[in-house]
Amino acid sequence: MKAARLHEYGKPLVIEDIPIPEIQADEILVKVTACGVCRTDAELIDGYFNRYFEIPTPITLGHEIAGEVAEMGRDVPSSAFQKGDHVVVVPGWGDGTCRHCQVGNTQLCPNVRYPGFGPYGGFAEYLPVPARYLIKVGKSLKSEELAPLTDAGLTPFRAIKKLRRADALGPDRVLGVFGLGGLGGYAVQYAKLQGGGATIVVFERDARKLEMAKTYGADVAVNITDRSATDVANELEAATGQRDLDAIIDCVGTPEMMQFGFSLLGISGHYVDVGLLGDRIDIPLFPRINREQSFYGSNWGNFTDLSEVMSLAAKGKIQHNIKTIGFDQLNETIDALRHGKISGRAVLKIDGK
Amino acid sequence: MKAARLHEYGKPLVIEDIPIPEIQADEILVKVTACGVCRTDAELIDGYFNRYFEIPTPITLGHEIAGEVAEMGRDVPSSAFQKGDHVVVVPGWGDGTCRHCQVGNTQLCPNVRYPGFGPYGGFAEYLPVPARYLIKVGKSLKSEELAPLTDAGLTPFRAIKKLRRADALGPDRVLGVFGLGGLGGYAVQYAKLQGGGATIVVFERDARKLEMAKTYGADVAVNITDRSATDVANELEAATGQRDLDAIIDCVGTPEMMQFGFSLLGISGHYVDVGLLGDRIDIPLFPRINREQSFYGSNWGNFTDLSEVMSLAAKGKIQHNIKTIGFDQLNETIDALRHGKISGRAVLKIDGK
Amino acid sequence: MKAARLHEYGKPLVIEDIPIPEIQADEILVKVTACGVCRTDAELIDGYFNRYFEIPTPITLGHEIAGEVAEMGRDVPSSAFQKGDHVVVVPGWGDGTCRHCQVGNTQLCPNVRYPGFGPYGGFAEYLPVPARYLIKVGKSLKSEELAPLTDAGLTPFRAIKKLRRADALGPDRVLGVFGLGGLGGYAVQYAKLQGGGATIVVFERDARKLEMAKTYGADVAVNITDRSATDVANELEAATGQRDLDAIIDCVGTPEMMQFGFSLLGISGHYVDVGLLGDRIDIPLFPRINREQSFYGSNWGNFTDLSEVMSLAAKGKIQHNIKTIGFDQLNETIDALRHGKISGRAVLKIDGK
Amino acid sequence: MKAARLHEYGKPLVIEDIPIPEIQADEILVKVTACGVCRTDAELIDGYFNRYFEIPTPITLGHEIAGEVAEMGRDVPSSAFQKGDHVVVVPGWGDGTCRHCQVGNTQLCPNVRYPGFGPYGGFAEYLPVPARYLIKVGKSLKSEELAPLTDAGLTPFRAIKKLRRADALGPDRVLGVFGLGGLGGYAVQYAKLQGGGATIVVFERDARKLEMAKTYGADVAVNITDRSATDVANELEAATGQRDLDAIIDCVGTPEMMQFGFSLLGISGHYVDVGLLGDRIDIPLFPRINREQSFYGSNWGNFTDLSEVMSLAAKGKIQHNIKTIGFDQLNETIDALRHGKISGRAVLKIDGK
Repeated sequence: MKAARLHEYGKPLVIEDIPIPEIQADEILVKVTACGVCRTDAELIDGYFNRYFEIPTPITLGHEIAGEVAEMGRDVPSSAFQKGDHVVVVPGWGDGTCRHCQVGNTQLCPNVRYPGFGPYGGFAEYLPVPARYLIKVGKSLKSEELAPLTDAGLTPFRAIKKLRRADALGPDRVLGVFGLGGLGGYAVQYAKLQGGGATIVVFERDARKLEMAKTYGADVAVNITDRSATDVANELEAATGQRDLDAIIDCVGTPEMMQFGFSLLGISGHYVDVGLLGDRIDIPLFPRINREQSFYGSNWGNFTDLSEVMSLAAKGKIQHNIKTIGFDQLNETIDALRHGKISGRAVLKIDGK
Repeated sequence: MKAARLHEYGKPLVIEDIPIPEIQADEILVKVTACGVCRTDAELIDGYFNRYFEIPTPITLGHEIAGEVAEMGRDVPSSAFQKGDHVVVVPGWGDGTCRHCQVGNTQLCPNVRYPGFGPYGGFAEYLPVPARYLIKVGKSLKSEELAPLTDAGLTPFRAIKKLRRADALGPDRVLGVFGLGGLGGYAVQYAKLQGGGATIVVFERDARKLEMAKTYGADVAVNITDRSATDVANELEAATGQRDLDAIIDCVGTPEMMQFGFSLLGISGHYVDVGLLGDRIDIPLFPRINREQSFYGSNWGNFTDLSEVMSLAAKGKIQHNIKTIGFDQLNETIDALRHGKISGRAVLKIDGK
Repeated sequence: MKAARLHEYGKPLVIEDIPIPEIQADEILVKVTACGVCRTDAELIDGYFNRYFEIPTPITLGHEIAGEVAEMGRDVPSSAFQKGDHVVVVPGWGDGTCRHCQVGNTQLCPNVRYPGFGPYGGFAEYLPVPARYLIKVGKSLKSEELAPLTDAGLTPFRAIKKLRRADALGPDRVLGVFGLGGLGGYAVQYAKLQGGGATIVVFERDARKLEMAKTYGADVAVNITDRSATDVANELEAATGQRDLDAIIDCVGTPEMMQFGFSLLGISGHYVDVGLLGDRIDIPLFPRINREQSFYGSNWGNFTDLSEVMSLAAKGKIQHNIKTIGFDQLNETIDALRHGKISGRAVLKIDGK
Repeated sequence: MKAARLHEYGKPLVIEDIPIPEIQADEILVKVTACGVCRTDAELIDGYFNRYFEIPTPITLGHEIAGEVAEMGRDVPSSAFQKGDHVVVVPGWGDGTCRHCQVGNTQLCPNVRYPGFGPYGGFAEYLPVPARYLIKVGKSLKSEELAPLTDAGLTPFRAIKKLRRADALGPDRVLGVFGLGGLGGYAVQYAKLQGGGATIVVFERDARKLEMAKTYGADVAVNITDRSATDVANELEAATGQRDLDAIIDCVGTPEMMQFGFSLLGISGHYVDVGLLGDRIDIPLFPRINREQSFYGSNWGNFTDLSEVMSLAAKGKIQHNIKTIGFDQLNETIDALRHGKISGRAVLKIDGK
């Protein structure tokens, strides 16, 4: 089968022909129909994660996977799946025994496996997936729209839930969305759905993305290019009546963005980060205490989160902004992501389906 | 001033002329501009509450009050209010010292006073209100639309918050709204705003109200007149894909409705009641345990709740359905409410303003 | 193997010899060493559950199970278990696919199986258990002390967690524990551990049990035999400074006890029920709303709950009160439970181990 | 009256004679009987806060205040207080109107006033306090033991509540307490009371303080002087069975301690900081996301928090470790605090009462 694999860190993916993988008794062989291309793919190639854990090559990348059931392992009950079923892949396969797995947070398992971060991934025609990490979806939904919902459209969903559960959102609150790349567009939509009437303000540097913010439902879009915090606070006040933010979802994660974000965060403010463009939090301590703020890291999403996202997709409540590509465009697309040049999501479409 | 007062339980209100009330140092004299008429007014007149606490007559009814600042007590800072400010009255005036007052739940204070349940109420040209129980509102908002938001449009808001905080709402959940009288119409709207994508199903007996349900944003409207639970479950399944409800807000509160509601409530279901048409919960115990269900009483709303509702109103996110009346129509309106004949809200408009 | 089975509802269990069960690929054959005897066993025999679901006979009862790994199914990894491991059985085996299973609440699965409520149970020398529903425990812990922790010592743990998460417990709160039978003794201990300094008051009719309440750590023990609510409130006030309860865990569940309990429940009070001696909630509605109270059904416990209980047991933080019996005393013990004559827990000890 | 005031930043306090303050209509003149001396006093003198807000001199320091009602303002109801009542002072006097005040978090009010951070403080014989910020206490409790409970014994209480509400504590969790200075000793005690059976590990550099940790109830005490993180993790594993911490309360707050703390924080870990010895958070970002950790600033405590602490004190559930001093020892005591040389709490005792 065709697959795009990383053989050496820092080098482009190699499009090559490899054997179709075998499956275990509890696994399903998924025929990939679409796989989202993510900035994290660029970071993986560039060795961002190597300081924490080094994945041996070759690696088949691609972690936003939609596909079809091609073959079922011996122990998979036929009541659960049938050949030809359309599915999406839940990321974060836990060992099922740890404290986190026991409450469904399999993506936090110390022994977690992620598709696209090891031998099997979605930049290939097939991959084996434990049956319990597949969610069936309606056949009328487009696979290229579903695929990105397993990361770009899943990660901010979980993060917004954290804000909602922290009671950070509501009619008289102002939520800042930082960055309108792959995740930010979904973040704005979920903020509309989950925010209970909160005012949503997008902060971006890219004028084209700022315009898109409005189409996703943002109330205000602020261009922060070369702006001081005071300057931005003035614009915020004019637009919303308050100079600071009650909550922030940061889809960027550079030290500068975090410093900027915390400087705008109000009393009892909540900050959730899903962005990983940097790897340092470097901010003053006193205002965190004095203003009693909270910070949450949020890691991808679990089965329950993805089920909820699929429910929204099935109801037609998610607006998609995708562009399909073929294997031959993969490396250039990853490079464009590396430089922040993609708005919405590029999705590898396999077999033109 | 003109006032409508109850002199004898079970008798109509008497429209009469009484002195304008004096105010204390920390109070404001509010010139009433509009006051909602509530089914609770009928229940108060009929003696529903007498089995719990008997309020001495004469009583000036009217507890959904919007008005203007007419005069300020000596200790009210001029930075806070000015003559002519438009205000709504927060119901539930606590003594400020109990555990519930300390966290803002003044409506739960053991020494609570409610406007409209004692000497002063909104069915009068003026009433004294402690300054801390007033919220300033924009002058462009209509007082007859704001007044009902202090009970009919406040009580379900707090109740829906309880469901949201219990994590009972979300994209793959089905919420039932029981009864589309004064409160139910707002309940549906708040469920849309706070439900995070939940499917909303209204259950009613009145065909006209069922039609209105859709205009408020309900996804499904079920007529339960002479229907068995199984029959209704069938309709529910056809419309939503599931035979039971994940959450219920009950704006009726008769024993029959509660039995019906609990029979439809699913595993891990949440039931919040704000309806008081009956005074008995009489349901099987075992399914509550076996299905691990929760029940919440919800009592009116506090300053914070009303602030949030006012924020929604200011943003134009609430659809109003009101009909204004004069003092001379008060008694007949209360009688219509007594028989469930009002859809939306009737509001006493004072001085034709 | 020896087993105690129900062949006809309403009749005593039959002690008989039956074949050792086969196991599936993902199961473990557990050699039972101890099994608690529960009032629910009496209710099952008496047909209490038949109005909701009728379990076909013969039924092997016994659902509080500790034992040893006797044999492992083909797919159970040897890294997880080894022959001879000491284990306890998590009750509530879900199908692993529903929304409740996905967050670990397998005991709420619509397709749940319970040991002791079907062909296999702990009143037998062996039973098959899915490997994922076993928790390994230290060999120095006594099986007869561990067995009751899987229901009597698990159910109130989950219920107290519900109260704690509802923020119902804390230094200035008074918690009532209703009934000091099998579950109540553990409830008091968990209330000490989880209550954050709350005052704990036990309500009972049995003088001997009231004395035991103190040894479990109760601050106050109130005999409610032939007492009016006012009378009891007076005693409560003398002992705690307040006339009502902030929270209740009800281990009884008769309509009378619930009426009594709700009459004592204060403003913003929380009531959790695990008792099933009756099958009706029949209480006034208005005070629930007016005092804004919450009611929670709590169903047994899940893997996480039982892991936490086992952690407490391993640290020596649970005081046990058990009496071991043999197969020949089973029926008389169940009868004693039926009449509320057991304090602490009777545990069937198999093979004298 | 006698008062200790700061006239110039960086200089010792001046003990001098100044007029007894006037009170407003809603205030009470409190005769101070005891006032705790806090490391924050040293930081205030040293200008730590000046980068955020500069308080004009002269400043009467002292913010942990117990005293007696000496005189009551015109509007204070005699039902609430009487001359001679013993009281403690709730810190954080809000304006009563903001969103935070409305839910009782007056210490977060944008217009907050703190005693000891302006003209009036507890290092004086008298100070005026708004009546609503006083809590009456039993006369049998010692004022020198109560005074520190309004900050050193209040701040960690609120912080531990944050951990408990985040569900970070429980039987199978390990909590780290960083620093056993003024706050840490209380933190350990509250962790025992509120931790639900969690294992408590104190991390300190001072051998004497480490010994005290055990008397407060810590399960493990780890000396971190010149230890690598790996080394400490080894000791942690030997003592608790796990190499990382599930939750941390940091009473230190230096950048080094925070780096050390986060390096030990496990998956889904919760970190609450109340320490302010540094003013920088400078840590890696990726592990926060990957391990999905949460960080909370916690600011002092509110009326409700202090009521709960007073409830614990009245029940005798708090172990005190205080040393009384006179006005003449104030400056040297503050200097000892500046160098971490005080274990437990030094309390200024006024009039030898």
